[in-house]
Amino acid sequence: MKRKEYEAALEPLQNELVGMARWGSATGARIAILFEGRDAAGKGGVIREIADSLSPRQCRTVALGTPSETERGQWYFQRYVAHLPTAGEIVLFDRSWYNRAGVEQVMGFATDAEVQAFLAQAPVFEKLLTDDGILLFKYWLAVDQAEQEARFQERLDDPLKRWKLSPVDLAARERYEDYTAAREQLLAATHTDWAPWRIVEFNDQKLGRLTLIRDLLDRLPDTAVPLEDIALPPLSHRPLLERYGAATPLAPYRI
Amino acid sequence: MKRKEYEAALEPLQNELVGMARWGSATGARIAILFEGRDAAGKGGVIREIADSLSPRQCRTVALGTPSETERGQWYFQRYVAHLPTAGEIVLFDRSWYNRAGVEQVMGFATDAEVQAFLAQAPVFEKLLTDDGILLFKYWLAVDQAEQEARFQERLDDPLKRWKLSPVDLAARERYEDYTAAREQLLAATHTDWAPWRIVEFNDQKLGRLTLIRDLLDRLPDTAVPLEDIALPPLSHRPLLERYGAATPLAPYRI
Amino acid sequence: MKRKEYEAALEPLQNELVGMARWGSATGARIAILFEGRDAAGKGGVIREIADSLSPRQCRTVALGTPSETERGQWYFQRYVAHLPTAGEIVLFDRSWYNRAGVEQVMGFATDAEVQAFLAQAPVFEKLLTDDGILLFKYWLAVDQAEQEARFQERLDDPLKRWKLSPVDLAARERYEDYTAAREQLLAATHTDWAPWRIVEFNDQKLGRLTLIRDLLDRLPDTAVPLEDIALPPLSHRPLLERYGAATPLAPYRI
Amino acid sequence: MKRKEYEAALEPLQNELVGMARWGSATGARIAILFEGRDAAGKGGVIREIADSLSPRQCRTVALGTPSETERGQWYFQRYVAHLPTAGEIVLFDRSWYNRAGVEQVMGFATDAEVQAFLAQAPVFEKLLTDDGILLFKYWLAVDQAEQEARFQERLDDPLKRWKLSPVDLAARERYEDYTAAREQLLAATHTDWAPWRIVEFNDQKLGRLTLIRDLLDRLPDTAVPLEDIALPPLSHRPLLERYGAATPLAPYRI
Repeated sequence: MKRKEYEAALEPLQNELVGMARWGSATGARIAILFEGRDAAGKGGVIREIADSLSPRQCRTVALGTPSETERGQWYFQRYVAHLPTAGEIVLFDRSWYNRAGVEQVMGFATDAEVQAFLAQAPVFEKLLTDDGILLFKYWLAVDQAEQEARFQERLDDPLKRWKLSPVDLAARERYEDYTAAREQLLAATHTDWAPWRIVEFNDQKLGRLTLIRDLLDRLPDTAVPLEDIALPPLSHRPLLERYGAATPLAPYRI
Repeated sequence: MKRKEYEAALEPLQNELVGMARWGSATGARIAILFEGRDAAGKGGVIREIADSLSPRQCRTVALGTPSETERGQWYFQRYVAHLPTAGEIVLFDRSWYNRAGVEQVMGFATDAEVQAFLAQAPVFEKLLTDDGILLFKYWLAVDQAEQEARFQERLDDPLKRWKLSPVDLAARERYEDYTAAREQLLAATHTDWAPWRIVEFNDQKLGRLTLIRDLLDRLPDTAVPLEDIALPPLSHRPLLERYGAATPLAPYRI
Repeated sequence: MKRKEYEAALEPLQNELVGMARWGSATGARIAILFEGRDAAGKGGVIREIADSLSPRQCRTVALGTPSETERGQWYFQRYVAHLPTAGEIVLFDRSWYNRAGVEQVMGFATDAEVQAFLAQAPVFEKLLTDDGILLFKYWLAVDQAEQEARFQERLDDPLKRWKLSPVDLAARERYEDYTAAREQLLAATHTDWAPWRIVEFNDQKLGRLTLIRDLLDRLPDTAVPLEDIALPPLSHRPLLERYGAATPLAPYRI
Repeated sequence: MKRKEYEAALEPLQNELVGMARWGSATGARIAILFEGRDAAGKGGVIREIADSLSPRQCRTVALGTPSETERGQWYFQRYVAHLPTAGEIVLFDRSWYNRAGVEQVMGFATDAEVQAFLAQAPVFEKLLTDDGILLFKYWLAVDQAEQEARFQERLDDPLKRWKLSPVDLAARERYEDYTAAREQLLAATHTDWAPWRIVEFNDQKLGRLTLIRDLLDRLPDTAVPLEDIALPPLSHRPLLERYGAATPLAPYRI
């Protein structure tokens, strides 16, 4: 999909996202969106697309690193609970508690017992949240290996993207099927009525983003909240200019 | 400036930003960047431009809301201290402790005594941070009122931008000079050798971003850290396809 | 019960508490103890008795105040989750999530729907914790009204205890039966196999403490961990005296 | 000093402590008290004595453990700042930021440069706090080595006190003079007008506590706040008894 085409298709969705946020502020709705999926599937990109349309004071992205020793000793969900949305907030989880059944399982960072315990707890935990009224959405981003490989190669070749290439990515290359199996196991255990999964193909990232955002918007209740009537009366004087005293502006960048 | 032109000029800067982040990871450098300035000057845009180039696990944006009652009772800097970078982190402050001398002063949310106390404490506080080795950068984004007015109008007219139009923005329109005076007072008190301000004109946002990012990069020490040598050997099998069992992907969005 | 008698009876229990803590450190056990009950029943006293025997680096008391606005917007359990024990910790909750079904219900701070939602969620939430291996103990301290009245009077008369007399205490005097009803409702909903309640009569506080602590110790698994063999060889020199330079000690208090 | 004698002397001080807390609540005063000193000097005991007189909702004890890796990467004072008192609070620091110049220096956990940096920053940091109106008190508890040795021996022999005997304690035995030197260096650098140290001899713990608490009270401004006039009208009915339904109380402990 060409950029122009994508942007034209995206704009009405952005309008609805902004409407969703206005509705969230007006009603105190709490929205939590989980983004999971294969490495290089495009989680970061779709998260940015959503976050960039919204106020950073309302919409937070949560991308937790490896747990500290204190956190490892806690109830597994504890460090995620700390980031759940309060009234009016939208929280985007760039990876989430599902790490345990995904990367931690496939790479052997969690024991079988821990994975089984997680799969038993996750739907119960999520039911507590949704019963409490939190709007919880879970997306799993799919990508075929040929496309994934191409993206790894691009991350390797493009210095701008190199930071995205992690050792775990590389190890994941030979475990594509293990991730598929982990995802199926995860779906079997946690694809519930109260917190269903949505799988979105991201072989074409732009199309994937449009599909995901459209689905998100469709699953929200009616979020129509009219724009406030705001007056912008003429200034009582001619527009003023910046005046500098104690310090002067930097010389503009020369291309 | 046209978008194409801007993107062409931006790309080498993005490369250097990514290099800065790699250097930060390698050396444990702590980078804190404060973005202040007039309403609608373009803080959010330049912050997004920087953050979007970097890993969300390394680079955090901090945009604090109004303080809670508990926070109002604390040492003024306490809630900001909680967000300072640890080793290897980059923190972008979308507004900062300078709120007190800016909007809080101009709008009468802080007493004169509180503002004076802040202006006395800020440079001392910042010296503690920089002496500790934190790299602290402070940018003040300037914009002439005619341009500011045009942006307010755009925020009013464009539903996508409406959320950016706050009541404080509207009140600020008749206080353009008060903000100028507040900025001059702030510069007089806190433009120090260890944490100097940089004023950047954002009448042209794209040019402003390039100017600011270029300045930031120029003020860092030599951040050259070579890219790691990473091997991407051929897969041991033909690339695999996603296979779906428990659930199937969403139908792709139709434009 | 006389103090001497009480202290003699308490000492072997303190020894076991210290053993419990040693066992917790050795095994990484997580112990959470909830103290609920009528105003003036003696929660604070028994908590202090336990905490004072243990290291403040291992045993924390959690006494949360009224929630902030942000907290009120969150999942009800969120602010309590933040204080759950990590490996090796002992957390004493001076009041707990049961506030909602107790004081908040009786005093009308929570709606019926909120209370019902809480009663449905609490056992599920607690099962998540106990399934995760957290050792959860719940004590409800009972006291007859005549004794409660005597304690309120003492709090009124004794300046040392006056801070314990809250407006909620006073309002509770005419709602003794409402609290009984709330407790019965709470027991019916949350007295589970995995997190049973224990009611302890505190008409005699000393006896109540002994009863509670004995029960707690009896419900723990075998916590025997031998004391480490530590050598304390003679000093290589005569014991030294403090020497003062820059400042001298305060003159000792004269009785 | 005999216990009876001690308790008689302590009671009026407890009354004043309670008055201090009432004054803190009424005025929003913020009180931070640092307890430093030799191992086994009696920090824990005097902290408990103060805390036990006050409401756990108003008075917190902060006893931080070893820093996490994230904390080690931060500005040294950051993790302490998080625990500073808000309006109306009293915070007791069981060891404090002075760890760096004390145990960390003597035991070689901090480099010379880190210690020097700390000694330069501490008075500046403390001035920020006291200028902000925080009431900051710093106590250093002194004890002669013969007495310290006796307490180590008691910790070794008495299972109730064994947890107080740490490996650092044992290592400290041969470094008594190093601790003296560290304390003198610390006093030279941080015994300031705005945050002076008080040295208190704790060879007799009871006398030490009385001395310390008396000094604390003397250094506060006039904290007289009259007790509220509270009415405790007779109940409108005969006092009620607990009635048990869903569960019955535990059998009382039998001595």
